[in-house]
Amino acid sequence: MDDLIERLSAVLGPGGVLTEPNDIAPFGTDWRGLINHRPRAVLRPADTDAAAAAIMLCARAGVSIVPQGGNTSLVAGAIPSEANTQMVLSMARLNRVRSIDRTGLTMVVEAGVTLRNAQMAAEAEGALLALSISSEGSAQIGGVIATNAGGNNTLRFGNARDLVLGLEVILPDGTIWHGLRRLRKDNTGYALRQLFAGSEGTLGVITAAALKLHPAPRQRVACLCGVASIHAVLDLFARFREEDEAALYAFEYISGEAMAINLRHMSNGRLPLANQAPHYALLELATTRRNDHLRETMETVLADALESGMIEDAVIATSEAQRLAFWAIREHLAESQKREGASVKNDISVPIAAIPLVLQRAEAMLARHYPGARMAAFGHVGDGNVHLNVITTAAGEALMADINAIVADLGGSFSAEHGVGLTKRPAFAAWREPTERALMVRIKTAIDPADTLNPGKIF
Amino acid sequence: MDDLIERLSAVLGPGGVLTEPNDIAPFGTDWRGLINHRPRAVLRPADTDAAAAAIMLCARAGVSIVPQGGNTSLVAGAIPSEANTQMVLSMARLNRVRSIDRTGLTMVVEAGVTLRNAQMAAEAEGALLALSISSEGSAQIGGVIATNAGGNNTLRFGNARDLVLGLEVILPDGTIWHGLRRLRKDNTGYALRQLFAGSEGTLGVITAAALKLHPAPRQRVACLCGVASIHAVLDLFARFREEDEAALYAFEYISGEAMAINLRHMSNGRLPLANQAPHYALLELATTRRNDHLRETMETVLADALESGMIEDAVIATSEAQRLAFWAIREHLAESQKREGASVKNDISVPIAAIPLVLQRAEAMLARHYPGARMAAFGHVGDGNVHLNVITTAAGEALMADINAIVADLGGSFSAEHGVGLTKRPAFAAWREPTERALMVRIKTAIDPADTLNPGKIF
Repeated sequence: MDDLIERLSAVLGPGGVLTEPNDIAPFGTDWRGLINHRPRAVLRPADTDAAAAAIMLCARAGVSIVPQGGNTSLVAGAIPSEANTQMVLSMARLNRVRSIDRTGLTMVVEAGVTLRNAQMAAEAEGALLALSISSEGSAQIGGVIATNAGGNNTLRFGNARDLVLGLEVILPDGTIWHGLRRLRKDNTGYALRQLFAGSEGTLGVITAAALKLHPAPRQRVACLCGVASIHAVLDLFARFREEDEAALYAFEYISGEAMAINLRHMSNGRLPLANQAPHYALLELATTRRNDHLRETMETVLADALESGMIEDAVIATSEAQRLAFWAIREHLAESQKREGASVKNDISVPIAAIPLVLQRAEAMLARHYPGARMAAFGHVGDGNVHLNVITTAAGEALMADINAIVADLGGSFSAEHGVGLTKRPAFAAWREPTERALMVRIKTAIDPADTLNPGKIF
Repeated sequence: MDDLIERLSAVLGPGGVLTEPNDIAPFGTDWRGLINHRPRAVLRPADTDAAAAAIMLCARAGVSIVPQGGNTSLVAGAIPSEANTQMVLSMARLNRVRSIDRTGLTMVVEAGVTLRNAQMAAEAEGALLALSISSEGSAQIGGVIATNAGGNNTLRFGNARDLVLGLEVILPDGTIWHGLRRLRKDNTGYALRQLFAGSEGTLGVITAAALKLHPAPRQRVACLCGVASIHAVLDLFARFREEDEAALYAFEYISGEAMAINLRHMSNGRLPLANQAPHYALLELATTRRNDHLRETMETVLADALESGMIEDAVIATSEAQRLAFWAIREHLAESQKREGASVKNDISVPIAAIPLVLQRAEAMLARHYPGARMAAFGHVGDGNVHLNVITTAAGEALMADINAIVADLGGSFSAEHGVGLTKRPAFAAWREPTERALMVRIKTAIDPADTLNPGKIF
């Protein structure tokens, strides 16, 4: 042990290895504060070669490695799966934006750059890095790709994997795969970058990525609608999509209960609409066009929707401040639910058309089996991804299983965005057929036979 | 052998196994007619279960299988890699559109449905299957996904893999992976669908796919521009992208030489512009918006471009017939070059900004080493994907190697769209670093240890 630490220190230089209990404790605690597995040490390489050398040393010593970015995983994916034996490999010092290509609209960033810093670097060049998640101030590019992060603009631009053109990855034995190509098209063998994206650090350690950028939008218009039924929310979504799919950057759902809880707990929480509604839709149109009548499009569709009774009320943000205030409502939902009391959280998805059914069945199940429980649902309804969160004092496990049964029956997923990590392993084992799990295990075994990288995650 | 054929016949039913030399010969000849490797027999299952049973029988007998869709591969990817030993598995009878979900904008189609039939089925529901390639009348969905096909609209909607939500796949031992999920988001383990997409039939046989659809555009406007320099072509691309990225469905490049050859060989070939130009750009704007001033956008940008000298001339299609006539010019390029005489063809890509350099260096190399050779370049310039085709009587191999050296130096790819198949295996071996090849071989070996599926392709 001492010998390994010494050799790692030699490779990683001053400040490259943390071993003091107080220093390393935070690296063993997950974002939600539910689990604490102290790492054996924390490795902080400053560049790819140092990281590769460290991984090679650990692999040879039979010590496993947990790659960690901003540690914002909601499924404990970036902390050790057990205490005191695993090394955390912190990517925070690989934090350079290596290059931005304005003509090709691509950027090459290292794994430790926070998503926000990457967004800002793109913005400084007049471009958009089209990925936005609540934790973007802390979440780092490596983790964002390794977990295939989603967020509010997935509807328009896809998940993280859809923005990845190339990757630089350290394999479990410490060799480096130089796959940092910046090509829009390249059909030469298996899509390795797509395999590493979403593999949650179990196949390789992403050290840098070539990402696709988009031109920055010149206009954004947001709107909040009060809606009588969830069916009407879907009708409104279909109406906007059919009218101007390309401009529909976000379409979020907030249930009446989730909004009520939110207004109780937000400082200066105030509903921008005259009356409360059973359901809300928060949506944003955006475009690169300079002479676009984006607001007019919004008004036309909303006027039709009001007249036909599809929506009850709507308010369009009249200033950038108000637009941001609307989004602050959305961003505050999780925090408000935490303050409201014990809650069962999930991150399910179903085919979009099944959203009314999944809500209705979950409500009926709660009414029958969990008296007093309140569902406070919200989510990315345009992607079929909703959080059927429940405010209850009942046992979480059983309730989660009951919700999952409904979702499974509708052809859904138990984890739309958050991944499997440590905490959703039981669901993974229960939901995925043996053939699918066996395929994944064969891939894991082929690439990481000694189980060096992020052991105990996913499987 | 007879015993295997008998058992296959029992499983596949009447017409399910072809063994007559005249019947099976076409299945052994590639699209370009360069290679003929007669299969041992041709298997024609009518559904997934029959296909799985046939694969299992062959696997147990140690006989390998070549999945074949429309057999439109340009790299001989769908014919046997050697004569008389391999079974061709024709997917043509798995030709049902299983379902279309208008609300979720998804469709489930079997592997043997032609791309055009899939497009038409989507269109009948008011939706767009956003993939278009020259061979779409013959190419089948299974092959389109297995080769990650590109085409004219990749610029806007991505390659085939970007439209795949779920897959049903038969593994090399005959077991079926039921991964036909229709979810926009699902982060539960490795992206198996992304691994099978683009794997050229070497890891599994795709039998059905759940595909993403888009709302059908309500308007399309196409335009042909004469341009003085390749730099100006890129400037024009950047200008349109910055003005209205979402509406830019296609941006194609045609060199003066390629256009001249085309006009000579097309029946009724006539340049829609007043004068010939050194370079041409063919582009299309489209939108779902009903009250959109798409034509106005086109006119505004073109007027600016004319005034600033970015382009020399431009003509906007004034009717649907003219729009299709513009695209007929584009579609006829390959055929015209074939008629012009012996030519060296390729399918390279580079970062978009490097396109002027790659053209310039290739021209200089030809002038120096291949007197009399004429480059007739064209391609999907918005994706960095150009065909640097050469009309020459010189030896193809050496010239191709000289072009490839230029492309490699600029960080490009030797196969942007067409894949590796049989004919680009030498390039794959030469271009891809050992680490990358070894990774792919490890995956192949893990999933298909007996090399049952499409042996001798890619590697």
